[in-house]
Amino acid sequence: MKKKIRVVQYGVGPIGAAIVRLMRQKQALVIAGAIDKDPEKVGRDLGEVVGAEDAPWGVTVSADPAEVLSHPTDVVVHTTSSFLVDVAGQLMECLEAGACVVSACEELSYPFRKHPELAAKLDEAAKESGVTLLGTGVNPGFVMDKLMLGLSAASQRVDHAKAVRIVDVSLRRLPLQKKVGVGLTVEEFQREVDAGSVKHVGLPESVAMLSDGLGLDVDTITETIEPVIATEPFRGEFIEVQTGQVSGIHQIARGMAHGEERVYLELNMYVGAADPSDTIQLSGEPNLRMVIPGGTHGDTATASIAVNAIPALLAAPAGLRTARDLPFCFFPPLSPP
Amino acid sequence: MKKKIRVVQYGVGPIGAAIVRLMRQKQALVIAGAIDKDPEKVGRDLGEVVGAEDAPWGVTVSADPAEVLSHPTDVVVHTTSSFLVDVAGQLMECLEAGACVVSACEELSYPFRKHPELAAKLDEAAKESGVTLLGTGVNPGFVMDKLMLGLSAASQRVDHAKAVRIVDVSLRRLPLQKKVGVGLTVEEFQREVDAGSVKHVGLPESVAMLSDGLGLDVDTITETIEPVIATEPFRGEFIEVQTGQVSGIHQIARGMAHGEERVYLELNMYVGAADPSDTIQLSGEPNLRMVIPGGTHGDTATASIAVNAIPALLAAPAGLRTARDLPFCFFPPLSPP
Repeated sequence: MKKKIRVVQYGVGPIGAAIVRLMRQKQALVIAGAIDKDPEKVGRDLGEVVGAEDAPWGVTVSADPAEVLSHPTDVVVHTTSSFLVDVAGQLMECLEAGACVVSACEELSYPFRKHPELAAKLDEAAKESGVTLLGTGVNPGFVMDKLMLGLSAASQRVDHAKAVRIVDVSLRRLPLQKKVGVGLTVEEFQREVDAGSVKHVGLPESVAMLSDGLGLDVDTITETIEPVIATEPFRGEFIEVQTGQVSGIHQIARGMAHGEERVYLELNMYVGAADPSDTIQLSGEPNLRMVIPGGTHGDTATASIAVNAIPALLAAPAGLRTARDLPFCFFPPLSPP
Repeated sequence: MKKKIRVVQYGVGPIGAAIVRLMRQKQALVIAGAIDKDPEKVGRDLGEVVGAEDAPWGVTVSADPAEVLSHPTDVVVHTTSSFLVDVAGQLMECLEAGACVVSACEELSYPFRKHPELAAKLDEAAKESGVTLLGTGVNPGFVMDKLMLGLSAASQRVDHAKAVRIVDVSLRRLPLQKKVGVGLTVEEFQREVDAGSVKHVGLPESVAMLSDGLGLDVDTITETIEPVIATEPFRGEFIEVQTGQVSGIHQIARGMAHGEERVYLELNMYVGAADPSDTIQLSGEPNLRMVIPGGTHGDTATASIAVNAIPALLAAPAGLRTARDLPFCFFPPLSPP
């Protein structure tokens, strides 16, 4: 490539804003446009919306994807929703405009089991336009799947894959605290879980990716969500929790093959969680364990992973790709376009 | 692919034998031949030479590469020497025969600084034959470079990369113990270091890969090798060490950019090393640390990594590739050819 890579940010929420600030540091990229429907953002300068010190950038946030995408766009970075049915139309529009897309939509990370028709349709549209589509982020897309696949390169035999992620959400943003039910009563928590609004989306996608990548032959994926109950009161910047209320979630996904557990993913996200860390473990020959003490900060890491994926995305064959297919690495700020 | 992948093992030493035993477990592979010049092995059944329970396999070890390679070969797994000048002729012969090659030759893992002409020549030969060449193993190729590049996908900025590998060589094979000077006097150790026979080969290659992958702009690579002195006697299966003799090596490679350290790789390989582990650390935004408690067993992991790389090797574009380019993952035993 000689020309800079023209990128568009689709969705300028907290993660989108972090992505935009990071993209601004990459000499190979030029931020050519931004899409968001929030009336508070539309019409304003993108640099100002994301709180950049060097604002204004001369890039205006638009509510009109068709207009933005009518200008030449190499890559769209997409961060609007966790659910594939909600974003499939947005993704199709980007692909049809001839842009590669990297999306933080959790269900896009490995959509072949839950949404096989949508996955096939997106794959076809990407191939028709000769572009690449990737769903990724920190989880799914990295700590509970991609890192484990990377470690498995040292394996002679893999019988079981396990990952445990412990996140202290005390200092995290409000939408994330709400997503894990912080401050609800146990009854409210259960209602929100039933309604699908308290949940981390993406564990079954990681289980499916691991099963395919490690040949674990998983036929059934189960998922449970339990509340973590506060044993002492907590007062944060956004939310208060009384003793006995919910301080977060304890969510477990299992991949079973012929009645036997082959994948176990455990997510602990609550205020005051002790010893935050990511631990992954492959049982087999040999047994391998890898720990990230302190863990990977979700928002920072998701922004990093989406932006760092851009060079691999552009180099990959056309179609719907996943974290499983692509070599992941840092995208150096001074790398040539 | 419909047909099985036809593999040839080039070099049937301890690592080659481990590779052959592992390849035998993969349904997608058929072991079509083996090359070794050792008169103790030539003419014997490969299964018997590697101590397989299901020997004989009907595959005879041959000292004649040209003859073996005259039969259709998809992939050669090559394990004969650490030094690129010693193996370049062997690799060329494989490439010219139209075979992809994965080699454990440490200097092939990232040969662009030390052997730019040889690297270009091998790349050209591979492209001319439409095949792929890869040098990899546990180190270089995995714990001190590839894993760190994988972790860096979560980075917004990388200022410094550090890896520390601690290996207890008490129970390892004799050639490895000799390679790290176990049982020598300090004077003998220094002579062997000067002669290049006591040394772990590959740290500068990892530094170079990290510099390029992380954009660290390293202009100078330094390397030091110190003896670790035994503070108590040790009697192993192969070697005895008296107090005051050498129990192994403490080897450090540094990558400097404009006088500043950007990469630090430290290798501790000695008998009785406490707390074996692999630790990698990226300083920047954020700081990230990852630990493999117990560490990765070198021989087992090198065999795994070489064999697990075969599917990615076959899928990669023709030419000389490195661990930096390819997505690494487990190669499931039942995966279709």
